[in-house]
Amino acid sequence: MPAPRRRSEKSRRAIYDAALALVGEVGYPRTTIEGIAARAGVGKQTIYRWWSSKADVLLEAFLDLGERQAAEAAEAGQEQEAGRGQEAGRGPEGEPGSYGIPDTGDLAADLKAVLRATVDELRDPRFDTPARALAAEGVVDEELGRTFVAKLLEPSLQLYVDRLRAAQRAGDVRPEIDPRIALELFVSPLAQRWLQRTAPFSHEYTDTLVDYALHGLAPR
Amino acid sequence: MPAPRRRSEKSRRAIYDAALALVGEVGYPRTTIEGIAARAGVGKQTIYRWWSSKADVLLEAFLDLGERQAAEAAEAGQEQEAGRGQEAGRGPEGEPGSYGIPDTGDLAADLKAVLRATVDELRDPRFDTPARALAAEGVVDEELGRTFVAKLLEPSLQLYVDRLRAAQRAGDVRPEIDPRIALELFVSPLAQRWLQRTAPFSHEYTDTLVDYALHGLAPR
Repeated sequence: MPAPRRRSEKSRRAIYDAALALVGEVGYPRTTIEGIAARAGVGKQTIYRWWSSKADVLLEAFLDLGERQAAEAAEAGQEQEAGRGQEAGRGPEGEPGSYGIPDTGDLAADLKAVLRATVDELRDPRFDTPARALAAEGVVDEELGRTFVAKLLEPSLQLYVDRLRAAQRAGDVRPEIDPRIALELFVSPLAQRWLQRTAPFSHEYTDTLVDYALHGLAPR
Repeated sequence: MPAPRRRSEKSRRAIYDAALALVGEVGYPRTTIEGIAARAGVGKQTIYRWWSSKADVLLEAFLDLGERQAAEAAEAGQEQEAGRGQEAGRGPEGEPGSYGIPDTGDLAADLKAVLRATVDELRDPRFDTPARALAAEGVVDEELGRTFVAKLLEPSLQLYVDRLRAAQRAGDVRPEIDPRIALELFVSPLAQRWLQRTAPFSHEYTDTLVDYALHGLAPR
């Protein structure tokens, strides 16, 4: 018989999986705690014991998915050992679990590596389908949109702010640049191509965004 | 008694207004031809005579709204005569109805003027509410999303492509730059701040985007 802690972990995983699958299938408004519980094979009281709302469950399910994707990417990177630059989601020392943007001293290479990993993440159907459902609801439901931006999107954008500040200290980015605006030059184009399907995206595309953003469009 | 043509114009305007109001209030899935007809005070056969689907009605309603917004902006610009740069939606000769990005020879000023006008347009509740409802649906309904991007968004992005090509001929943008990607450096950040409410936006913000995009983040 499994220990209680182990049993809880299994339920937690089942609840996250059920929440992400359900929101992807029926959309946010029709996702309910009851539906998540039924699909996860747990009582709805089990969910209410740990989370106060479906928004809370989904928020943590996405955080958990992001951690799993980063861990998988790191593992794949180690297995390939192909020298394709550092993996996203690992710190400068490369320890797993240290989430940040690498600082190898080569700003362009570091940004390209992280954006390539983001391209792969956006293409993962485990992320794409539920994330679209939630993003769509955030567009029309201002409170939900602001909550998820503050808790899921903005913390990852702050990693770019940190990396750009380090680049300013190293003299690779001009001191008068506002890093919170600057990161949007490469992050927002990818976000729009993904969310609105304005055009296809690839590693080559995000590499180009980084080059344009760092060196500008005007003659030098 | 009004002439038939005049009567048609009045119905057409009522149908556009009803379609935009309804989609903003109840969302795309619950907007119906019947609902638009009832709100516009016309029979639903009147709508079916001119349009084949609710998507068609909305598409034309947005095109019409965009034209009205551009005409109003041009008129306000003429009245103010304040030398705040050329208005969006008017060609280099400034004739009304010639929609394009101005080419005064000053690329930064031209892009800033158009993006400032876009900021004003996005803030107009006549546009914001229905456009959000439609964009939200496009995020999850791939076919609808692709149709509206192709017919409403991409044509306006092509105006930036044209302006950037002219800038390349004038030597203001490097020849190897791909204009269709380059425009995203200033258009996509504004789109994301609007759609996902990631941060406030202003004329100062879009001016900054243009400066960063043209001159890059790296030291020159």
